[in-house]
Amino acid sequence: MARQPRLPVSSRVRVRRLHERGRYDRASIYAILDAAFLCHIGYAIDGQPYVTPTSYWRDGDTLYWHGSAASRMLKAQAQGIPVCFTVTLVDALVLARSAFHHSVNYRSVMAFGRARPIAGRAEKLAAMEAFVERMFPGRWTELRPPLEQEVKATAVLAMPIEEASAKVRSGPPIDADPDYALPIWAGLLELETVVAGLSGDGRGVGAGPPPVHLANYGPGRTFAELLAAAARRGAAPAAD
Amino acid sequence: MARQPRLPVSSRVRVRRLHERGRYDRASIYAILDAAFLCHIGYAIDGQPYVTPTSYWRDGDTLYWHGSAASRMLKAQAQGIPVCFTVTLVDALVLARSAFHHSVNYRSVMAFGRARPIAGRAEKLAAMEAFVERMFPGRWTELRPPLEQEVKATAVLAMPIEEASAKVRSGPPIDADPDYALPIWAGLLELETVVAGLSGDGRGVGAGPPPVHLANYGPGRTFAELLAAAARRGAAPAAD
Repeated sequence: MARQPRLPVSSRVRVRRLHERGRYDRASIYAILDAAFLCHIGYAIDGQPYVTPTSYWRDGDTLYWHGSAASRMLKAQAQGIPVCFTVTLVDALVLARSAFHHSVNYRSVMAFGRARPIAGRAEKLAAMEAFVERMFPGRWTELRPPLEQEVKATAVLAMPIEEASAKVRSGPPIDADPDYALPIWAGLLELETVVAGLSGDGRGVGAGPPPVHLANYGPGRTFAELLAAAARRGAAPAAD
Repeated sequence: MARQPRLPVSSRVRVRRLHERGRYDRASIYAILDAAFLCHIGYAIDGQPYVTPTSYWRDGDTLYWHGSAASRMLKAQAQGIPVCFTVTLVDALVLARSAFHHSVNYRSVMAFGRARPIAGRAEKLAAMEAFVERMFPGRWTELRPPLEQEVKATAVLAMPIEEASAKVRSGPPIDADPDYALPIWAGLLELETVVAGLSGDGRGVGAGPPPVHLANYGPGRTFAELLAAAARRGAAPAAD
């Protein structure tokens, strides 16, 4: 099947409530995925749903997440059970003139599928490298290389992005027409996740200044923008 | 059953991976719940898991969330199907000397149960007031009162907090002993969600300065702290 820039709108991914907020093109979906690193993965074991927060990364048209090879969650998911992968970025609280029209400005992605475990040593190492480089381009080669037992103890799951949608709300509150005449303040409380500090652990080189590959990650920087920029750099061949 | 400050450690909530990170007392769990407003709710329809982000509030020993009465998610959950309610706050990325020991500092809560719909008009209005007051103490009475059709169009679900746990990682990276001697920088990249702006919508009173009940919500303020403080004030009887 040829790769389509617009994903098929299956019953599962179709945005039903407030359908005008739905997006089905890869560009919109990937822009959200690349501005975050935390997802919530839903799966069911014996009919009981679980939602586990975990870090993830995107490489091309595939989502990856990882964890301990002993993890109950990863073992279950590696069996190919259906999962729901959700990422949410909150941009603002929307304060309207009535309680009913209060809302949240957000960007979210929901992806459905089944994950497969990455088994081969080389493929697993490449995925782990992509994860580090996706967040901190240039860091991988500075790290102590992975030990065999570490590679074995790490499970990496991959899920192709084939059934996904984004849902986005932006802009000011939308009040009922007559309410605009009322003396009630309405607007946006904008939120942003920023770097609060970059602090070494005080041991060895960790007592000194951060390395060059972290030069952009200074206090006050918007983390979603740093992530998106790192994803662009990490995806490109190393300049070296 | 008498209310216990420490919740029972059922098989579902027991933290298995890195069990030393688990917390089962209501104080730890509620502190996390009160510092956030976005949860991810997992549920399954015909075996397919879904994870939906939504805002929530806690009132006493009960979790609440709401949405359109026409929502497929809320309709399904109101039937009393099992749900998993997860809240995650990220505090830092943990940069270690090896890829393997990289981690995330976070505070998360996972709660299991079945939700019930709030049916009575008065109880529903009280829940909606608690939601607004929990975030913005003093705002409810300034708003245009809810219309009957708005109350009817809103579904509110409640779930008692009876089976829940928290999982917390904090502190510096924990590297393998020999790695501390290597010339590799390690430490924390601390993250914080802050108010980026509080901007009126430019219409009517929304063209002027924000009201007194939003005086604390200025740019740069840590949102988790504002939420926790508002939860404390909102829970107390109004000073009037």
